[in-house]
Amino acid sequence: MSLNQLGIVKRNIVRADSAAVARLSKLGVATIHESMGRVGLMKPFMRPIYTGAHVCGTAVTVLMHPGDNWMLHVVAEQLQQGDVIVAACTADSDDGFCGELLATSFRARGGLGLVIDGGVRDIKELTAMQFPVFARAISAKGTVKSTVGSVNIPVVCAGASVNPGDVIVADDDGVVVVPAALAAATAHASEAREANEADKRTKLAAGVLGLDMYKMREALEKAGLKYID
Amino acid sequence: MSLNQLGIVKRNIVRADSAAVARLSKLGVATIHESMGRVGLMKPFMRPIYTGAHVCGTAVTVLMHPGDNWMLHVVAEQLQQGDVIVAACTADSDDGFCGELLATSFRARGGLGLVIDGGVRDIKELTAMQFPVFARAISAKGTVKSTVGSVNIPVVCAGASVNPGDVIVADDDGVVVVPAALAAATAHASEAREANEADKRTKLAAGVLGLDMYKMREALEKAGLKYID
Amino acid sequence: MSLNQLGIVKRNIVRADSAAVARLSKLGVATIHESMGRVGLMKPFMRPIYTGAHVCGTAVTVLMHPGDNWMLHVVAEQLQQGDVIVAACTADSDDGFCGELLATSFRARGGLGLVIDGGVRDIKELTAMQFPVFARAISAKGTVKSTVGSVNIPVVCAGASVNPGDVIVADDDGVVVVPAALAAATAHASEAREANEADKRTKLAAGVLGLDMYKMREALEKAGLKYID
Amino acid sequence: MSLNQLGIVKRNIVRADSAAVARLSKLGVATIHESMGRVGLMKPFMRPIYTGAHVCGTAVTVLMHPGDNWMLHVVAEQLQQGDVIVAACTADSDDGFCGELLATSFRARGGLGLVIDGGVRDIKELTAMQFPVFARAISAKGTVKSTVGSVNIPVVCAGASVNPGDVIVADDDGVVVVPAALAAATAHASEAREANEADKRTKLAAGVLGLDMYKMREALEKAGLKYID
Amino acid sequence: MSLNQLGIVKRNIVRADSAAVARLSKLGVATIHESMGRVGLMKPFMRPIYTGAHVCGTAVTVLMHPGDNWMLHVVAEQLQQGDVIVAACTADSDDGFCGELLATSFRARGGLGLVIDGGVRDIKELTAMQFPVFARAISAKGTVKSTVGSVNIPVVCAGASVNPGDVIVADDDGVVVVPAALAAATAHASEAREANEADKRTKLAAGVLGLDMYKMREALEKAGLKYID
Amino acid sequence: MSLNQLGIVKRNIVRADSAAVARLSKLGVATIHESMGRVGLMKPFMRPIYTGAHVCGTAVTVLMHPGDNWMLHVVAEQLQQGDVIVAACTADSDDGFCGELLATSFRARGGLGLVIDGGVRDIKELTAMQFPVFARAISAKGTVKSTVGSVNIPVVCAGASVNPGDVIVADDDGVVVVPAALAAATAHASEAREANEADKRTKLAAGVLGLDMYKMREALEKAGLKYID
Repeated sequence: MSLNQLGIVKRNIVRADSAAVARLSKLGVATIHESMGRVGLMKPFMRPIYTGAHVCGTAVTVLMHPGDNWMLHVVAEQLQQGDVIVAACTADSDDGFCGELLATSFRARGGLGLVIDGGVRDIKELTAMQFPVFARAISAKGTVKSTVGSVNIPVVCAGASVNPGDVIVADDDGVVVVPAALAAATAHASEAREANEADKRTKLAAGVLGLDMYKMREALEKAGLKYID
Repeated sequence: MSLNQLGIVKRNIVRADSAAVARLSKLGVATIHESMGRVGLMKPFMRPIYTGAHVCGTAVTVLMHPGDNWMLHVVAEQLQQGDVIVAACTADSDDGFCGELLATSFRARGGLGLVIDGGVRDIKELTAMQFPVFARAISAKGTVKSTVGSVNIPVVCAGASVNPGDVIVADDDGVVVVPAALAAATAHASEAREANEADKRTKLAAGVLGLDMYKMREALEKAGLKYID
Repeated sequence: MSLNQLGIVKRNIVRADSAAVARLSKLGVATIHESMGRVGLMKPFMRPIYTGAHVCGTAVTVLMHPGDNWMLHVVAEQLQQGDVIVAACTADSDDGFCGELLATSFRARGGLGLVIDGGVRDIKELTAMQFPVFARAISAKGTVKSTVGSVNIPVVCAGASVNPGDVIVADDDGVVVVPAALAAATAHASEAREANEADKRTKLAAGVLGLDMYKMREALEKAGLKYID
Repeated sequence: MSLNQLGIVKRNIVRADSAAVARLSKLGVATIHESMGRVGLMKPFMRPIYTGAHVCGTAVTVLMHPGDNWMLHVVAEQLQQGDVIVAACTADSDDGFCGELLATSFRARGGLGLVIDGGVRDIKELTAMQFPVFARAISAKGTVKSTVGSVNIPVVCAGASVNPGDVIVADDDGVVVVPAALAAATAHASEAREANEADKRTKLAAGVLGLDMYKMREALEKAGLKYID
Repeated sequence: MSLNQLGIVKRNIVRADSAAVARLSKLGVATIHESMGRVGLMKPFMRPIYTGAHVCGTAVTVLMHPGDNWMLHVVAEQLQQGDVIVAACTADSDDGFCGELLATSFRARGGLGLVIDGGVRDIKELTAMQFPVFARAISAKGTVKSTVGSVNIPVVCAGASVNPGDVIVADDDGVVVVPAALAAATAHASEAREANEADKRTKLAAGVLGLDMYKMREALEKAGLKYID
Repeated sequence: MSLNQLGIVKRNIVRADSAAVARLSKLGVATIHESMGRVGLMKPFMRPIYTGAHVCGTAVTVLMHPGDNWMLHVVAEQLQQGDVIVAACTADSDDGFCGELLATSFRARGGLGLVIDGGVRDIKELTAMQFPVFARAISAKGTVKSTVGSVNIPVVCAGASVNPGDVIVADDDGVVVVPAALAAATAHASEAREANEADKRTKLAAGVLGLDMYKMREALEKAGLKYID
């Protein structure tokens, strides 16, 4: 373990099992996050740049400096088909680190989408491309290319710990990180959870109360809930 | 008046007059807020989860704890046709308190929409349902069911005081609270205000200045406004 | 230079060259901002009230007080065809300073759009009118008409310095201010920049890396970047 | 109940029992808030302007407009010895509504301190006076005197509902509102709570664990907590 | 006027009259801001790093990039005795741009203090030095020295327009900018304002109401204020 | 690796070398952060609750739920002399998770201080105890004890990744995390860095410019910096 973790590009990473990724791509972020015990979620300031954006793939991570997007060019070379770029920054920065040209490059190299704890620009063009981006801000502010960061080191992105190769799933509800080693188990638990929801939905739509369906009345009474008129 | 207001569900509340509610449902939030003397508005961080969301109904209130949505199940039972759930929280919390299943239950029990000083999830599904939700955040973060709050007590939601039975009107401009006792008078004043706008719109569209239409020139001069070249 | 800059309406201002404005209207905010050396941008909290909003015109400036929109009526009279109203405020205020009626008046007097460091309302109607507004907030909160500000003085709006007559360009990426004296030069530099992008896009789409296209490898190595396996 | 609640000064209000106020003045905000069942607290953005500021008194309420402090002059006349001014605003505003001169007036008329959902200025002088102020912001920004609000109506201040005559207690931990009718009961419950703390403190200081003192081990195990090595 | 304003150091600037600066140094920020007609104030997020910090001097401006403090070394050479460094940034950045060593250099070259729309560090040492700093943030985060900005160009710092040579006055209430050409007039108006305050203070302390002293009763009645019991 | 990381208390952790911790305790956060290559810092919203607070020790981590401080009682049992409690939360929560009683317990069990991505209360008492706390908020808001989290798992606290046993150093400039394996190397690099500063300080105080001391002039010229008069 070196003192300085900046200035490193790790070329070989172990990506999560592709079959598990394929299964997770059919599931919602809220469901996956629940299945994992309610951990692994990025902060809610991470929003899709267009309604309906969705992406599921394996993380290739990059650590940038505020106002500097040099490493996004470096990370492009490390992409494989099915990857999602996860860009963290050493400090909060809303600058427009990525636009249409970089997204074109990412896609050409196999990148499925971008999750960035920073700003992006060319919103019109990125939307036209239907390139899913989840970001903390939208800003036309350009960046410099002066200082090296790192690629494929563990990063903290929007409050979540991400290791290279982890599964990233993002939709209108947010962004969740599934550790590579838990991908299959999480897919399994999430599918079970979802299968269970259809029946609940039917009952609730028919007017059955969650109070009864989940048998909450006794626990509520024990917790001291009182009904008055 | 008890020391502890938590742990109470009030079953019988007096709802605002339904005819007044019907009239208010045809009016915009900005108009209603103006008619009330510019009070009763929730903070502007309360936003619709999809463009064009609109709801008008009688408030059924609920007070929750941060990260705990137990009381949303309790409130479902207290709904009548035409109600809007107004969910306040004892502290700021962006967690995803409500999703598709709860919304399905609310709708089945007569709930028209949800106004929540907290987060929601299942945005795609809620939009497909066209279930109007106004919230402070969108977040996949799940919640626990551990601590009791209250239903149908007076609450402060997003900076506005809400009593059970008040009229809640929400559209793309925000959320306004009309006290039940003022519903008819507010509908009347708002309709008068709106009737007055068509004529103004025509004049302004024809190039007449507000300065002249509202006869502001004298007051401006008196206030010290000076024109220079 | 008078001690008190409030209470002044300057009638005659020098607007940027209309041919330059026309050229800038065909260019994106990100491109223009880059061409100017990455200055002149408003803060990223300035967002369009509907997706796809775009405006390019000459600035007519107005300085308002928090919660007071009186000067918006004053500014309407000073508009010429092709102007964009740039509304600054002496302190942060999210109130709804402008709605459909004022926008109707602005448009009737030649105003192309509004850039306001404050809130707006009547979102549904403004969207139906396709009147482009870029604002810091959306709020139904009404304002008073009590205190005079100024029209066509230099202002700071959302962190950017704006002089009357400057060119304002706004799109989904944000709002940029082009000083009137630099309008033609900026248009020229921006067009050159854009012409250059088509070729880059083609190469990147074909899988060429920015690392090679921009010849970054040597600089990165010199900066200490190391590749490991 | 009138449609428009602005423009009213209520002269006669019922203040909380002075003996109860005196007892509450000896207790901390955290203790009082706990005794009330964890309700009644203002948002944590309300901070004292100097360390150690403390106030306890009966609320005289005032509703102001953004950037307008006219009503602070009106409220001064309504003060009695032992009152605390609670200033709410119809929208968020960080302007400096109050400074040394107004504080001098408040104190001369019996006011013990100020709780304001807005900004204040003259921090150096207010600190020298040891006049306790709890505010959302510090700002030199001056305000106008143009628009009437109201005095001694129910207000929402920093997220808490305040009625004229309620007890306001504020210290380094925040600001709590005790409804007048609950003042004595709250004082009683808070004193009991505090009496109970000395023993706990001694035990904890001696190394006894809360796990044992509060007998939490069984509940934790039941909730699923597992110890691993 | 060049297209690119970055990369420039202007050596000769016209500083405000030193006698006027000396007079302004005896006055408070709130008073000066009022005398100027309530303009020229930086945003209230600009706070002193220690209580009681105060500075008054002539602005030497610098424009930095996010996370890059290179230009602070450049600006040190341009200081004269009595200057205050005003550091703006092309985008919001909380990084720690300045610490004890740079402050030592600033002081050695005649700098009286620092006003920075960014973060600073070495708070303990800067406080021990009693070097007045007004900043948007405190952060240990280090910065790079990679990209040139400019020195002594007009900047927008924390929402206020600053020209090199302007007078900067900062105290516990905030930071105000007095244009060089208005320095003497502002000092005069501020002194008059302050002279006027002693008499007001005495009257208010004696219980005279602002309502009477400022003769507000008639205006309030005209504005519709009603007293009820 | 289990799917659900909640509900676990790890009793045996490997703490950083105590000699290295002792050396780090004599160094400032800014220096340590620089020595590590400018990584490992928590977000700047983490502030000491009193000026001059300082702590250096080994991390015992805890993951809490919003508004729930149950796990703080659990973590107390796992402390050894020299530990610092690092409390993360599954979502942003400003509630007052910790007060004087818990701090008393922490100290009695060997805890040196608390770093919490949440709120704290009893500020007066904690300051009197001189118990160093670094927190995101101050709030009297009480919490429940309902839901289990975990102790001594890897957490993300205020944007920084923390493993049990890492060294935590916190002072007025912020909070830095030194991975246990890097503690000695970081102490060494930081000491070298600091030794180097005394000479720099002397030179800068004598008026030598950083431009010359760091030999920046050539690089600045190469980067395009131009001096004009």
